[in-house]
Amino acid sequence: MTILSFLSRASRGFQGYTACSKLLILCTLSSGGLVAYSESHPDTGTPGVDPNQKELKKKRVLVLGTGWAATSFLKDLDASLYDIQVVSPRNYFAFTPLLPSVTCGTVEARSIVEPIRNIVKKRRGEVNFWEAECLKIDAANKKVLCRSKIENNLVGNREFSLEYDYLVVAVGAQVNTFNTPGVEENCHFLKEVEDCQKIRRTVIDCFETAILPHLTEEERKRNLHFVIVGGGPTGVEFAAELHDFFEEDLSNLYSTVKDLVKITVIQSGDHILNTYDERISSFAEQKFNRDGIDVQTGCRVVSVSDKEVTMKLKAKGEVCSIPHGLVVWSTGVGTRPVVKDFMEQIGQGNRRVLATDEWLRVKGYKDAYAIGDCATIDQRKIMEDISSIFKAADKDNSGTLTVREFKEVIDDMIIRYPQVDLYLQNNHLSGVTDLLKDPDGHDREEVDIEQFKLAFSHVDSQMKSLPATAQVAAQQGAYLSRCFNRQQQSQDNPEGPRRFRGSGRHKFRPFRYKHFGQFAPLGGDQAAAELPGDWVSVGHSTQWLWYSVYASKQVSWRTRMLVVSDWTRRFIFGRDSSRI
Amino acid sequence: MTILSFLSRASRGFQGYTACSKLLILCTLSSGGLVAYSESHPDTGTPGVDPNQKELKKKRVLVLGTGWAATSFLKDLDASLYDIQVVSPRNYFAFTPLLPSVTCGTVEARSIVEPIRNIVKKRRGEVNFWEAECLKIDAANKKVLCRSKIENNLVGNREFSLEYDYLVVAVGAQVNTFNTPGVEENCHFLKEVEDCQKIRRTVIDCFETAILPHLTEEERKRNLHFVIVGGGPTGVEFAAELHDFFEEDLSNLYSTVKDLVKITVIQSGDHILNTYDERISSFAEQKFNRDGIDVQTGCRVVSVSDKEVTMKLKAKGEVCSIPHGLVVWSTGVGTRPVVKDFMEQIGQGNRRVLATDEWLRVKGYKDAYAIGDCATIDQRKIMEDISSIFKAADKDNSGTLTVREFKEVIDDMIIRYPQVDLYLQNNHLSGVTDLLKDPDGHDREEVDIEQFKLAFSHVDSQMKSLPATAQVAAQQGAYLSRCFNRQQQSQDNPEGPRRFRGSGRHKFRPFRYKHFGQFAPLGGDQAAAELPGDWVSVGHSTQWLWYSVYASKQVSWRTRMLVVSDWTRRFIFGRDSSRI
Repeated sequence: MTILSFLSRASRGFQGYTACSKLLILCTLSSGGLVAYSESHPDTGTPGVDPNQKELKKKRVLVLGTGWAATSFLKDLDASLYDIQVVSPRNYFAFTPLLPSVTCGTVEARSIVEPIRNIVKKRRGEVNFWEAECLKIDAANKKVLCRSKIENNLVGNREFSLEYDYLVVAVGAQVNTFNTPGVEENCHFLKEVEDCQKIRRTVIDCFETAILPHLTEEERKRNLHFVIVGGGPTGVEFAAELHDFFEEDLSNLYSTVKDLVKITVIQSGDHILNTYDERISSFAEQKFNRDGIDVQTGCRVVSVSDKEVTMKLKAKGEVCSIPHGLVVWSTGVGTRPVVKDFMEQIGQGNRRVLATDEWLRVKGYKDAYAIGDCATIDQRKIMEDISSIFKAADKDNSGTLTVREFKEVIDDMIIRYPQVDLYLQNNHLSGVTDLLKDPDGHDREEVDIEQFKLAFSHVDSQMKSLPATAQVAAQQGAYLSRCFNRQQQSQDNPEGPRRFRGSGRHKFRPFRYKHFGQFAPLGGDQAAAELPGDWVSVGHSTQWLWYSVYASKQVSWRTRMLVVSDWTRRFIFGRDSSRI
Repeated sequence: MTILSFLSRASRGFQGYTACSKLLILCTLSSGGLVAYSESHPDTGTPGVDPNQKELKKKRVLVLGTGWAATSFLKDLDASLYDIQVVSPRNYFAFTPLLPSVTCGTVEARSIVEPIRNIVKKRRGEVNFWEAECLKIDAANKKVLCRSKIENNLVGNREFSLEYDYLVVAVGAQVNTFNTPGVEENCHFLKEVEDCQKIRRTVIDCFETAILPHLTEEERKRNLHFVIVGGGPTGVEFAAELHDFFEEDLSNLYSTVKDLVKITVIQSGDHILNTYDERISSFAEQKFNRDGIDVQTGCRVVSVSDKEVTMKLKAKGEVCSIPHGLVVWSTGVGTRPVVKDFMEQIGQGNRRVLATDEWLRVKGYKDAYAIGDCATIDQRKIMEDISSIFKAADKDNSGTLTVREFKEVIDDMIIRYPQVDLYLQNNHLSGVTDLLKDPDGHDREEVDIEQFKLAFSHVDSQMKSLPATAQVAAQQGAYLSRCFNRQQQSQDNPEGPRRFRGSGRHKFRPFRYKHFGQFAPLGGDQAAAELPGDWVSVGHSTQWLWYSVYASKQVSWRTRMLVVSDWTRRFIFGRDSSRI
């Protein structure tokens, strides 16, 4: 316990007695003895105390998850303002964009994880972390039921419940198998650190089995056929890593079977990396072609057995099977059962994904927020509010909007409806007055309500949901922590846009995602990158850009050092093929 | 495949046709094409070929194991002389003295392992490795039955058998539970890399469970009670590591429960580290006492349940139980079932451990060698041969031995019976003539057979079996590889001592262990060391000596770099407490 947290705890006890409190601080600062005491007997009584029974002067914030969104939220949250509890089955944050590198030992698993207690311990005030899974959110009673996942002889009640004033749901998504038979049982996934460690061991198993004496050529080939389902960034990166691992390290050690190795990527769309720029997608396909990685596009996997993957060629409708030694399923995101159950409680049962408003507040339930992959922002359509906007803008109640009147509201409109900004950008409209031009392109002095509606009629089509990426989750976490930290200030000085349906201003500006680009490492120390401003960069220099960006984005100096030294180690000595 | 191995393979095919063979080498060296061919299509057909069906001009050496003894043997073995196969369930060599450091993350598991294929690939000629467990040695038919341990969907026959001309048994020992009830089910061990990873996860589990809300103080204490059974070097080092891990890293992160942690070492003897010098043993006890590690000596564990350890205090005969969160069993070595079965086949069924002679040849079975923890050297007693020695030395058949006659055989005696040397050293006898002194200490010119026997009557009591350490195993492996490499030369020029029961000389000198001292790291960057020449060193400087010795002893530059960078990382950032 730090001295600060001791003081804050002590002063909480004296709340209301300001003089006493000041006296205590004075005593403390002038007395080494008291400080020493606080250092040597910190908190001994606390563990036995029910966290729900604490003096609850501060609002209780309960965070579910320790992924990108939750960690980013916790890192910036001012812990002196709230009583913070975190529940997650993982006591660490994992730098997920490097998971494909972990599968082949380019980077070690421990190099990309940081204990959540380390991340939050520096905060002013206290953050309690419980390693447990959230089983159920009891929305009506503002409670969460949790269970520790540790399965051994340790004693104590595994289930406990926690109360909250504010709930932050950041549990992430789970793999979506689309109910394909056999996927759950026979495929590897690429979601958790443990998944990657398992894949790494299995790859070595495939080679060690294939090289054993007395096998037929066909058996060896089957064991050395690696199949990746899903041609998105994760699947493609894993295929590239696996190819490098084999080419650079394993082929020397298992030279007698090296000609039997095959890697196949199965993609349902027409191209791999189809969320990227077309140039990247075709660069990747050409690179894979040169590397001998087989890309099967337009194929849908219909079932996976322990020995074969069965797929349907979309174009011809044919069904064919390929033998495999390892299948990695890296496609689709699904909603976790606990979130699904929560959605049913709050009237979102018909939706596929938990919806929030633009301030990341869960729709239909007060005091819950949802960030990261577990939720999606339900962006309000401008057409729903168009009449209110017109009314608010038309100050003189003339029934028409002058350019001046329009200019007065447009900034607030852009903040409240980000699709307006996107529409202007995508249609290369220089200013807002361009919106009010008549169909022939002439400037207009005034528009009436119908003309106004017409001007915005295509704007809503620009709306699209944000991708399920680390970048989005991290920005949402940071945004939300700022809202929490400024709760009090914004009450008096709202900083958000004008309320078109109501009076005054919104407390905060809505969340706005800023896209910084995305990378796709393609193996052989080459990468492709989509950078802001429609820039595309491919090749070796892009890989070095990737190295610098990923090193700089590490959550701690420890992981940064470890990741960089892992890369160095790989350059000098290659990857380790020990089966541990 | 290297060019060299290609050449040797090709020339094997032409054996007997020396001219042809020379021509082929000439062609090969002058033709880039042929070399290029050998580089691009190496061995494709080999995997399908039954290794027992190969052209067997060279003697087949089958090595069981990839531990210290086997690896040290393989490293130095000249692979061009033999057809070498290695079978082990682990495809890597582990630097076992650092296992206790792995349990708490001071060093990472991957930093102390090196793939066996990497170690042996540099050898001239080829070494085949199969990742499989040896199920049975068929001594009569010179065959070994193996089974792959990989349990997944991979195809191929898991069982196969291998033939050998020479068998090198280096499978190590297994944990000995002394049939104590509950040990197998409820204890952790410290033998394999996986054991250490499991302990590391369980330690974090104990803390994560103990800190959960709604537990009683007693439950928290139970979960945080770490019990180590066995006060040998491994147990003591683990206790020290655990104490450091807690003090330096965990106590800050789990501050609310830090006063409840307890570490107990249970030792059946009167002191911990009782194979070490007394000074080290008492230094360790004092250090543990200061650190608050509870050392219970004179206690024998009678049973272990999932919640309690029951032990008997030897002195009082009392039985008491202590609750635990984690028990590590680090005492006793036992014989593996496969070795036990082999012993029964070769008439060693009554022995506890596989016996070899001083040349490491398995007793009672030709062409098998045993090295490392799985075997013990059955040193021949000098008294068994005393008459033959006398006869051989008494060249003039006078019935008495002059000093000159004695001096002529003493060197060979010392080589053949190392206990003579030990006896001289331990009794501070300056020369061999001291041995022949009469009971009053006067020099004698001649001794008869009875006086000769009397002189050596106490020598055999100096014999003791070698400890089950990495140092012994490594020296045995290196010794045996030298014997294998010099098989041919020694046939013509025997280098061993005179045969007292028979004519001529032994082919090789018997194995002689050279003790370089031993370390005991005690935590808090302090260590104790027993160095050659009855030197004892304790404290911080010894820990630095430990660092240098252990870094220099690493099997590869890769692991050396990793171990050193792990230590550096620990100094700067501490140990990682992520539960992966």
